[in-house]
Amino acid sequence: MNEFDLIARLAGALPADPSVIAGIGDDCAVLDVGLPDRWLLFKTDAVVEGVHFTTNAKPEQVGHKALARALSDIAAMAGTPTHALITLALPSKYDVGFVEEIYRGLNSLAARHAVAIVGGETTTNPDRMLLSIALLGWVAKDKCVRRSGAKVGDALFVTGELGGSLAGRHLEFEPRLAEARWLARNFSIHSMMDLSDGVAGDLRHILKAGGVGAELLTTTVPVSRAAKARARQGNAAKSPLLAALTDGEDFELLLTIASADAVRLLDAWKQEFPALKLSCIGKITSGSGITLRDHHGARPLNVQGYTHFA
Amino acid sequence: MNEFDLIARLAGALPADPSVIAGIGDDCAVLDVGLPDRWLLFKTDAVVEGVHFTTNAKPEQVGHKALARALSDIAAMAGTPTHALITLALPSKYDVGFVEEIYRGLNSLAARHAVAIVGGETTTNPDRMLLSIALLGWVAKDKCVRRSGAKVGDALFVTGELGGSLAGRHLEFEPRLAEARWLARNFSIHSMMDLSDGVAGDLRHILKAGGVGAELLTTTVPVSRAAKARARQGNAAKSPLLAALTDGEDFELLLTIASADAVRLLDAWKQEFPALKLSCIGKITSGSGITLRDHHGARPLNVQGYTHFA
Repeated sequence: MNEFDLIARLAGALPADPSVIAGIGDDCAVLDVGLPDRWLLFKTDAVVEGVHFTTNAKPEQVGHKALARALSDIAAMAGTPTHALITLALPSKYDVGFVEEIYRGLNSLAARHAVAIVGGETTTNPDRMLLSIALLGWVAKDKCVRRSGAKVGDALFVTGELGGSLAGRHLEFEPRLAEARWLARNFSIHSMMDLSDGVAGDLRHILKAGGVGAELLTTTVPVSRAAKARARQGNAAKSPLLAALTDGEDFELLLTIASADAVRLLDAWKQEFPALKLSCIGKITSGSGITLRDHHGARPLNVQGYTHFA
Repeated sequence: MNEFDLIARLAGALPADPSVIAGIGDDCAVLDVGLPDRWLLFKTDAVVEGVHFTTNAKPEQVGHKALARALSDIAAMAGTPTHALITLALPSKYDVGFVEEIYRGLNSLAARHAVAIVGGETTTNPDRMLLSIALLGWVAKDKCVRRSGAKVGDALFVTGELGGSLAGRHLEFEPRLAEARWLARNFSIHSMMDLSDGVAGDLRHILKAGGVGAELLTTTVPVSRAAKARARQGNAAKSPLLAALTDGEDFELLLTIASADAVRLLDAWKQEFPALKLSCIGKITSGSGITLRDHHGARPLNVQGYTHFA
């Protein structure tokens, strides 16, 4: 039983509440707290030594990554992050300088996105470090983009390049907050999420939530240089394309939009974000699951997304 | 360097934000999110296997304790909890039934206090279980009780009985949410917090925040039966009084109120909560630190509160 199955099973036992616009199963919880035009976004995310980072990672990078992952979930709903609490679980004997480096990474990223770190706690996790972020944000009620909402015929887009993140990018990525808000402000985005487990895994959430399928055009998938390099080294178990679809930890945006808006989106994006790729990688279909199409024809993509290495 | 010193040191580096009414150093973060009459409360709290509970604890109790601790912090500000996210970090091979038992404890307590569990995540913590709760709540702006605000001459009160919690109560306690709201609604509470590390440790936060001292009358400290039993067994390193002041994990309310209101409070409390003790254990003084007074005279209390056993 994987995380998604388990959460879904446990969620079945949870009582409903009219203030909960979205709960388990979307990137963030979306809450109506009585503000006229806004919903509150609420998210937690944890990184664990040996699971989400190795002991080779610099503490500043660990702090950055922990917060960036949570920020990426706020981005996935086109929200604006505001306040964070930090839970730092450390071996009993820790070096204060090490903790200060973690906070340097946290503080620097928080400052760039105007997030106030308003507290937290340190506790003991004797065998390894664990860093959990609780994050609040808000989103305009008419701009909130959810995982559900993909429609048959939608064009499927992804920001940036995919794959090979574990070579380094996963410790340094910038969450796509400005890009997501720009998208929601200027276009009718039907569905969106951030990519943490790879398109092969994450896209299935959009498909399931929308009751639809997807066809990916393999030649349009933006394969990162890191994914290609890994394949060239000859010891890779995956092709560059498969790496791009399954490596995980990309933290790019995956979104669908009416195909009639696709060209206007690509043109406007190039003006607004000339340094960041936006790729149309396929379309939403009336089927189910993911189909790969290349010059050989179409075949189902049966691999799943990334699962962490512990 | 202990947790409090460390958080204070790191807090010095954090940017200020006008939406932050209270940040690091109070029971919860208090946030102004634009609601006319209310502030948002935001809190995280984690429990770790071998630190906050042993493997002998039933999973249902672990779930209960984790949420109850966070609820107790909302109570400490006279707030009302609303929404929770659950972070469950588990060894790679876990039993789904075990996780369901944890959720049974969480759900039961959440339902009693109308808290909606709106999501969370499971992640891997290979060596031991860690359960972290992120909790939201609200408090009326004119009823929010903070740690600061104790005034010279205030009477010092504590709910329930103190000490010996690790004999079992720490896994089963009920957070004092209704009691705290009743206090704030009916009396001008000058300062309040929940007792997690024992009066000998926690009272110092109220004293430091208010720039005051306190004198405890030893005969008035409500020593629990568990603390007395432990002392009677002869193998206790502490007297029952010292156990009551330093055992920790009581999760009772510690509060100060003008001495002129003390008798009216005691009378009204007996009417409202006949089954729960409320004790006046001393007074706020113009000095600093904690003084113990008994029939031998007065002496400073130099011991600190509880620190966890890992």
